[in-house]
Amino acid sequence: MAVASIGEFELIDRLIQRLRQTRSDGLLIGIGDDAAAWKPSSGCLTVATTDSLVEGVHFDLATTSWRDLGWKALAENVSDIAAMGCEPRYALIALALRGASSLVDVEELYEGIGACAEAYHFAVVGGDVVQSTQLAINVTLLGESMAVQPGSTDRPLLERSMARVGDVIAVTGPLGGSAAGLRLLLEGRADDDAAHRDVLEAHRRPKARVVAGRTLVEAGIRCGIDVSDGLVADVGHLCERSGCDAEIDADHVPVHPGARAAFGDEAIDLALSGGEDYELVCAGSADALARAGKLLRQRGEPPLTLIGSMVTPIDAGGKVRVRSFGGALMNLDREGYQHFDENREPEGG
Amino acid sequence: MAVASIGEFELIDRLIQRLRQTRSDGLLIGIGDDAAAWKPSSGCLTVATTDSLVEGVHFDLATTSWRDLGWKALAENVSDIAAMGCEPRYALIALALRGASSLVDVEELYEGIGACAEAYHFAVVGGDVVQSTQLAINVTLLGESMAVQPGSTDRPLLERSMARVGDVIAVTGPLGGSAAGLRLLLEGRADDDAAHRDVLEAHRRPKARVVAGRTLVEAGIRCGIDVSDGLVADVGHLCERSGCDAEIDADHVPVHPGARAAFGDEAIDLALSGGEDYELVCAGSADALARAGKLLRQRGEPPLTLIGSMVTPIDAGGKVRVRSFGGALMNLDREGYQHFDENREPEGG
Repeated sequence: MAVASIGEFELIDRLIQRLRQTRSDGLLIGIGDDAAAWKPSSGCLTVATTDSLVEGVHFDLATTSWRDLGWKALAENVSDIAAMGCEPRYALIALALRGASSLVDVEELYEGIGACAEAYHFAVVGGDVVQSTQLAINVTLLGESMAVQPGSTDRPLLERSMARVGDVIAVTGPLGGSAAGLRLLLEGRADDDAAHRDVLEAHRRPKARVVAGRTLVEAGIRCGIDVSDGLVADVGHLCERSGCDAEIDADHVPVHPGARAAFGDEAIDLALSGGEDYELVCAGSADALARAGKLLRQRGEPPLTLIGSMVTPIDAGGKVRVRSFGGALMNLDREGYQHFDENREPEGG
Repeated sequence: MAVASIGEFELIDRLIQRLRQTRSDGLLIGIGDDAAAWKPSSGCLTVATTDSLVEGVHFDLATTSWRDLGWKALAENVSDIAAMGCEPRYALIALALRGASSLVDVEELYEGIGACAEAYHFAVVGGDVVQSTQLAINVTLLGESMAVQPGSTDRPLLERSMARVGDVIAVTGPLGGSAAGLRLLLEGRADDDAAHRDVLEAHRRPKARVVAGRTLVEAGIRCGIDVSDGLVADVGHLCERSGCDAEIDADHVPVHPGARAAFGDEAIDLALSGGEDYELVCAGSADALARAGKLLRQRGEPPLTLIGSMVTPIDAGGKVRVRSFGGALMNLDREGYQHFDENREPEGG
């Protein structure tokens, strides 16, 4: 049955049923009024992010199931909230559907959305469904920080602009898994056996690091971002906003074991520039990182890996230098990086 | 110049410059981090709404300028916040653009967005720009209620579900203007002289009733909705959620004078079912409506017009009966209404 064959209101009713809504203490009004309403948690800051996924641009239903698409659309927003050191709370979802879309497919999409909401303890409180010639999902996700200490001007958030020269750079888990999974799918050689399962899962059902983000803030770290564009690009965002340059030791970057197994020495390229890993990369003092490491261990979270440091900028800041295995520099731009001739000076860093 | 010829980051920078950002006291982080962040106002509830406009479905650039489109996309969300009795605070905008879209056009769109943000005192704090084959704008708008009285369980909101049998139904201003303006445009007989100016303005630059919404709540009214689908359809939403039926006196419904001038006796049809007027329709006790009327007068707002009442439902509730000029009933459905034979009983109301 095509979605166009039932009315908008009935469609919304059917989709809502696919959401296994988690209890949300502060929620007063969910789906069905002019707006959702909730009571913000006492003393906490509110954070908000929005992202759109468009078919043919951000995803391809040839390599992504509807259910995984629902999960991913939400998980990438959860990751943005995690990258602020906050907890996701309330989601609004605007869906642009072709009239010919199958109701079963769209219900599958909502199964994926519901699974993500359940896993990360947020509620879907509103949305919009419109007709379009191109499938698109827009998600707005609201989150909350830890409570602000009374009388303090300190913001319990991870901000891109808060890195300082001398800060150590660390990452919350292995990189390159999602890119490896995508590459296997595109090359048509993915199979769901143990060898490929982990990287396919990393691509299809990425995990957001909510506990890690909150733990970094608790430990006193104030600068972080999630690895969505790729490690080098995302560290570049920290550098630009903080007015630093960064140096990363490529041999310290944790490479996803499944990426290593599938792509050997090329896996480091995927780890440096692959993107969509949704691990967090942060910058802070060695002391704060040590405190964070201890807290993460207590909470059963993966360890932090130290991968480099923030350095004095050569120009206005924003450059990322990656030292390769032999000690040579790689030249990098936002789109990724290129190997650099060992005997040449890096261009502007 | 086409938007595809400049990078996403440069495009966003150029668009931000078009926003004449109003000061926003609680805002901590605006555009440019993983998420925006703000401090919620003490004791207030947060409300959130999202709406998408898709080219060819919700608007047509043949009859809508880019600047007006920017205004309208925001204003209809402001109206949803007003319909909760709240003030708009923070907007997130996700734009799906064709690569061939003109940068000048998109900057015009942002001029309209900026004008609306300035008029209604909210800040654009985040967004996303993606490439698409079909132009679409998604807006998520966050607002805040008045402060909740300490110890009270009363919610200072206008909710669809809060009408009671016996409540009087009132509307904050004249209806049918937007539909009249659209019809003139579609019939190719719109001119911008005094006769048509007001209804064209009502269609192109609808106003949201933020002051009126807050005033209704202050006066103790707790049920309301904005007229976006059409008066009868929207009163129907109140009835469905509240378990009432409604009776509306068509001869009491305020018809936009410009609609009357352009369409004569047909203007009442536009007022009853035209939609996109963004006046508020509310239900409450006669006392509360009298208090609201007095406060609105003090604030220089248009008067409330009483147009009917909530009545005991015949079945499960949700039916709207409109009494026409001679006392006859009109039979109505969600999509609009049909004149009813004077000698027949209404079907289930």
